[in-house]
Amino acid sequence: MFSVTVRDHMMIAHSLRGEVFGPAQRLHGATYVVDATFRRAALDGDGIVVDIGRAADALRAVMGELGHRNLDDEAQLAGVNTTTEAIARIVADRLADRARAGELGDGARELDGLAVTLRESHVAWASYERPL
Amino acid sequence: MFSVTVRDHMMIAHSLRGEVFGPAQRLHGATYVVDATFRRAALDGDGIVVDIGRAADALRAVMGELGHRNLDDEAQLAGVNTTTEAIARIVADRLADRARAGELGDGARELDGLAVTLRESHVAWASYERPL
Amino acid sequence: MFSVTVRDHMMIAHSLRGEVFGPAQRLHGATYVVDATFRRAALDGDGIVVDIGRAADALRAVMGELGHRNLDDEAQLAGVNTTTEAIARIVADRLADRARAGELGDGARELDGLAVTLRESHVAWASYERPL
Amino acid sequence: MFSVTVRDHMMIAHSLRGEVFGPAQRLHGATYVVDATFRRAALDGDGIVVDIGRAADALRAVMGELGHRNLDDEAQLAGVNTTTEAIARIVADRLADRARAGELGDGARELDGLAVTLRESHVAWASYERPL
Amino acid sequence: MFSVTVRDHMMIAHSLRGEVFGPAQRLHGATYVVDATFRRAALDGDGIVVDIGRAADALRAVMGELGHRNLDDEAQLAGVNTTTEAIARIVADRLADRARAGELGDGARELDGLAVTLRESHVAWASYERPL
Amino acid sequence: MFSVTVRDHMMIAHSLRGEVFGPAQRLHGATYVVDATFRRAALDGDGIVVDIGRAADALRAVMGELGHRNLDDEAQLAGVNTTTEAIARIVADRLADRARAGELGDGARELDGLAVTLRESHVAWASYERPL
Repeated sequence: MFSVTVRDHMMIAHSLRGEVFGPAQRLHGATYVVDATFRRAALDGDGIVVDIGRAADALRAVMGELGHRNLDDEAQLAGVNTTTEAIARIVADRLADRARAGELGDGARELDGLAVTLRESHVAWASYERPL
Repeated sequence: MFSVTVRDHMMIAHSLRGEVFGPAQRLHGATYVVDATFRRAALDGDGIVVDIGRAADALRAVMGELGHRNLDDEAQLAGVNTTTEAIARIVADRLADRARAGELGDGARELDGLAVTLRESHVAWASYERPL
Repeated sequence: MFSVTVRDHMMIAHSLRGEVFGPAQRLHGATYVVDATFRRAALDGDGIVVDIGRAADALRAVMGELGHRNLDDEAQLAGVNTTTEAIARIVADRLADRARAGELGDGARELDGLAVTLRESHVAWASYERPL
Repeated sequence: MFSVTVRDHMMIAHSLRGEVFGPAQRLHGATYVVDATFRRAALDGDGIVVDIGRAADALRAVMGELGHRNLDDEAQLAGVNTTTEAIARIVADRLADRARAGELGDGARELDGLAVTLRESHVAWASYERPL
Repeated sequence: MFSVTVRDHMMIAHSLRGEVFGPAQRLHGATYVVDATFRRAALDGDGIVVDIGRAADALRAVMGELGHRNLDDEAQLAGVNTTTEAIARIVADRLADRARAGELGDGARELDGLAVTLRESHVAWASYERPL
Repeated sequence: MFSVTVRDHMMIAHSLRGEVFGPAQRLHGATYVVDATFRRAALDGDGIVVDIGRAADALRAVMGELGHRNLDDEAQLAGVNTTTEAIARIVADRLADRARAGELGDGARELDGLAVTLRESHVAWASYERPL
């Protein structure tokens, strides 16, 4: 199994709902350093998993949809408790949509899976992985 | 599949038994930077894999049981060759015990697995993963 | 010249005032991974620059004063454009105040200087250094 | 499941064939920071996955076969489009050959699998994993 | 004293002239992860050292002038032994030229100094710093 | 001003004397990831600060003198409280001795200074710098 990973980041404000979150129930924020991993059993004719330039562009586009915003005010996230885990899934699902729409090139339709890791600090991170 | 990881560290002395270890048969030591990863197929009602504060506390407690000690003298480790691999398993098993005892919250009983990575330097690390 | 550095982090929301900030004029947020460096020409009688435990506690205390907050609403920061550079200075000045108040131990009164670096992502950071 | 990873690096020149590579079709180069991960279900009698010294030596030997070269001129790579993914596979296959030849010790014949990650920058990397 | 740093990278081929370089006399290559640090005694009216967006753009432009090339064939580098140290200076001097030309904004004319670090692997890097 | 840095590591056991050290008064240990930085105002005829291969060899030799030992039992360190700060100085002084003895090449006699940083964990490190 092969994989390729690209890294980008976004900076957001949000608050979390639930006593379990303690002081993080207050409005605060985070830098998420985001690693998007694309998996594929065999390489394509060019010898790659995915066009890494297009993959980086797609990740940057998703970062642009979410970053520099207060997630509490985003209609696109109404009803979502925007935990690191939940945002990892949203980023992965949006990348999957873009892959299926052909935005990563025709070869990307052969991808087997996708994993997204959000690093919220030097001591904590969350991941979500899914088939494609 | 979702996961959440927290990082902590411990500083120990020990020696290793067996010719394969060369100079590490002498009493020496290590800083282990420890990453504990908790895996779960679906998020709980709060949108999380595990209460990250409790997970960090549990990891810190395990670090406190082992850290700032000469592992060669610890009754709890009698007969164990304290390789990085072996300590990774001990840390993982202790975290699993704490999860089953409810120390990570009720939701943590739904965890599917656990992985522990011990980084002993910038060029070497070991991991152990197990179901929960 | 000797130095000792401790690392901690805080997660804040804020917005920046000025056209130069582009989309960062909107309410967003950041994780700041904060490195506090203490400098001293000669070691004290224990062979250290500063009690690293107390230094870490002091840094954690400053993180607690600022973290998990929307800096736009903090009376303590009224009139401050909370750029990474400006927050680096605030953290350094607060650590200097704590050092002078004896919170880092008597030896810390011999410190020559202090530097604070705030890493806002894997590709950008800011520092402020000052004498003590 | 246990694993042990060792890190080394190599510095190579090459060019890539195919329009998808844009400016990387020109002769350029890369530092690959290479992580080789050895997996095994149970530890051996010494309590290890593999002799980490021998594993590091084997990885260094493979780095020496490829590093400080222009891969475009290497007979050993004739016909290979030397993408990061393809080189990850070559490194993994060569380590597997060395393990089977006994170079990592007798215990290494019990290894279950091998993964190799090549980090080409702080924002991109590729991996290949295979059974052994 | 304040500073701001931005990180980018470039991938180049080259060979080095001189017996001291051993196998690096052969054509090979490197990824340089480049940190550009801008220093200034006092913040400007916006509370910054330099417009970080413009600084990142200027660094990217310099990376584009050198990256994805065989430095041995570049007329702009004729006669230069392209060691990591020498390239650090070239990058710093080009950023200084851009700052003086107003490309980083008017405020950047107040910069006191500039430092550039090129990381060629996880175990080696070189820096050059200069006044502005 | 130019500088070049090489990284290596050592793993030691020790205990610290003084109430300020709390649990670190017990026998424990550490991995020190060691960065040795060589500074020089102008490059030599080869375009370098120092022969990086020789610098790495010298650092490895110093690591070999101290590593895989219990520092409490070393005659060479009798009377030294082996804090991270103190070991940073010892490593720097030994590298300076080797430089003066010609071990880093003739050009290394032109070095202006030396800095050594010991990273004892992901959240704490110490440095010592001196002229040469």
